[in-house]
Amino acid sequence: MKTYLDCYPCFLRQALQAARLAGGTEAQQQAVVGGVLEVLVQMGADSTPPEIADQVHQLVRREVRNGDPYQTAKQAATQQALQLYPRLKARVAGADDPLEVALRLSIAGNIMDLGPELHYDLWDTVERVLAQPFAVDDSAALRQALATARSVLYLTDNAGETVFDRVLIETLAAPVTVAAKGGPILNDATCNDAVEAGLDQIAELISTGTDAPGVILSRCSDAFRARFEEADVVLAKGQANYETLSPGDARVFFLLRAKCPVIARDLGTEAGAIVVRQGDAGGRL
Amino acid sequence: MKTYLDCYPCFLRQALQAARLAGGTEAQQQAVVGGVLEVLVQMGADSTPPEIADQVHQLVRREVRNGDPYQTAKQAATQQALQLYPRLKARVAGADDPLEVALRLSIAGNIMDLGPELHYDLWDTVERVLAQPFAVDDSAALRQALATARSVLYLTDNAGETVFDRVLIETLAAPVTVAAKGGPILNDATCNDAVEAGLDQIAELISTGTDAPGVILSRCSDAFRARFEEADVVLAKGQANYETLSPGDARVFFLLRAKCPVIARDLGTEAGAIVVRQGDAGGRL
Repeated sequence: MKTYLDCYPCFLRQALQAARLAGGTEAQQQAVVGGVLEVLVQMGADSTPPEIADQVHQLVRREVRNGDPYQTAKQAATQQALQLYPRLKARVAGADDPLEVALRLSIAGNIMDLGPELHYDLWDTVERVLAQPFAVDDSAALRQALATARSVLYLTDNAGETVFDRVLIETLAAPVTVAAKGGPILNDATCNDAVEAGLDQIAELISTGTDAPGVILSRCSDAFRARFEEADVVLAKGQANYETLSPGDARVFFLLRAKCPVIARDLGTEAGAIVVRQGDAGGRL
Repeated sequence: MKTYLDCYPCFLRQALQAARLAGGTEAQQQAVVGGVLEVLVQMGADSTPPEIADQVHQLVRREVRNGDPYQTAKQAATQQALQLYPRLKARVAGADDPLEVALRLSIAGNIMDLGPELHYDLWDTVERVLAQPFAVDDSAALRQALATARSVLYLTDNAGETVFDRVLIETLAAPVTVAAKGGPILNDATCNDAVEAGLDQIAELISTGTDAPGVILSRCSDAFRARFEEADVVLAKGQANYETLSPGDARVFFLLRAKCPVIARDLGTEAGAIVVRQGDAGGRL
């Protein structure tokens, strides 16, 4: 997805938020804002939002001298979600259609994103997403793909959300490989964060090989790219994976909650919409 | 008031909004965003927000080749408020304390600001502000000052809001001079806009002598500065007048609704708070 003009204010806002979460001084925050302005002047609008966010957050980590500004927030999110885990499992166990409920739960977990907004009510979101109609619903195609898949690659998004991902992965029959970030970026789950959510216990856990947000294939390791190529089905969670991988190919299914109005518009939906979208059949990433 | 780091994303957002309201093409919008980034890099944080907004909106008008991007929006706002005028007058006429109600109405009108947010419910805001406690309440000092004032200078803010200002001005005993902007900036009322609201019929109408937002005294005409100096009481409406004139002096009373969180924090209140604040007794602008 290209970068829209509306994304520019958001980069500034996010960088300032990250600098504050990392305990940056007023002077460091000022250096971050100044530096981000320079980054935005230099980077062309043909970069995807996560490519720009990558530069922006590298700058934040450098200026604030904190390699993982969101570390505390990520750990808290994972703990919060783990407390819900038994309730989430019970919902799936009691469902007529466990896959449908698990899919919805994994999308509900996508609210655990500190990029677009800092405050949200988690269980309230869960209940809403369980009842909400899909704005884009390619779940029939997803079921079909999963029925014959010998391998599923699951691209995680945020820490905490990973617990909801775990519930979905536990309902899948095919062997799943879970990919988390190779280093800290925003509140995205790194491999360490994924371990805290227990994902290593139920699937093979690999790294994208980079701390870039989403999946910028050119930035990923050769090992990750090979796994991406050979997967029968790719489940891509959240906005950044959509921004970097869309339009995708027919193996890719984007699962997300459209939290920002720009992404919602790109998807042809409203903000708050929940989406299961298959990648373009003609494409091959 | 100094410019806070949180203001930077807001300048970008506002500039983009203005470029779109003015019918700017995608290329013009892009030029605006690029230009604003340059302005923000160049201008120091010791500038007040309206000083930066002044530069930003000069750039928008230049790039989009539209001298008054908010013209249609301003005229619509004035017409909308004029339709409420009889209801506003009736509220004051039926009040036990007409000045209190008129003060509140003028502050309620401060919602008609296209800077912080484009959408609001006008009558709903009126009802809320009529019942809402003041977060800062120097209205007793204001009553005292008005009781002996031989001249009141009334600094308007936005088009449409001017109709609410008219209701307040009509309750004042002292002769009032109303100042509007010398040229278009955001949806601030120019003298033409003030005339559409009927302000010239009930007070002497003067211009600040500049199209800068708020009242940046160094940018105003000598004639305006003289009127500012000699006024016994200055009623300064809205955020931009607070941002440029605070801490002010004891003659100045800031009447506003704190719409943005940054200004709310500067005032020691919450966003949405309504405020009558006297300027610092020690100061003299």
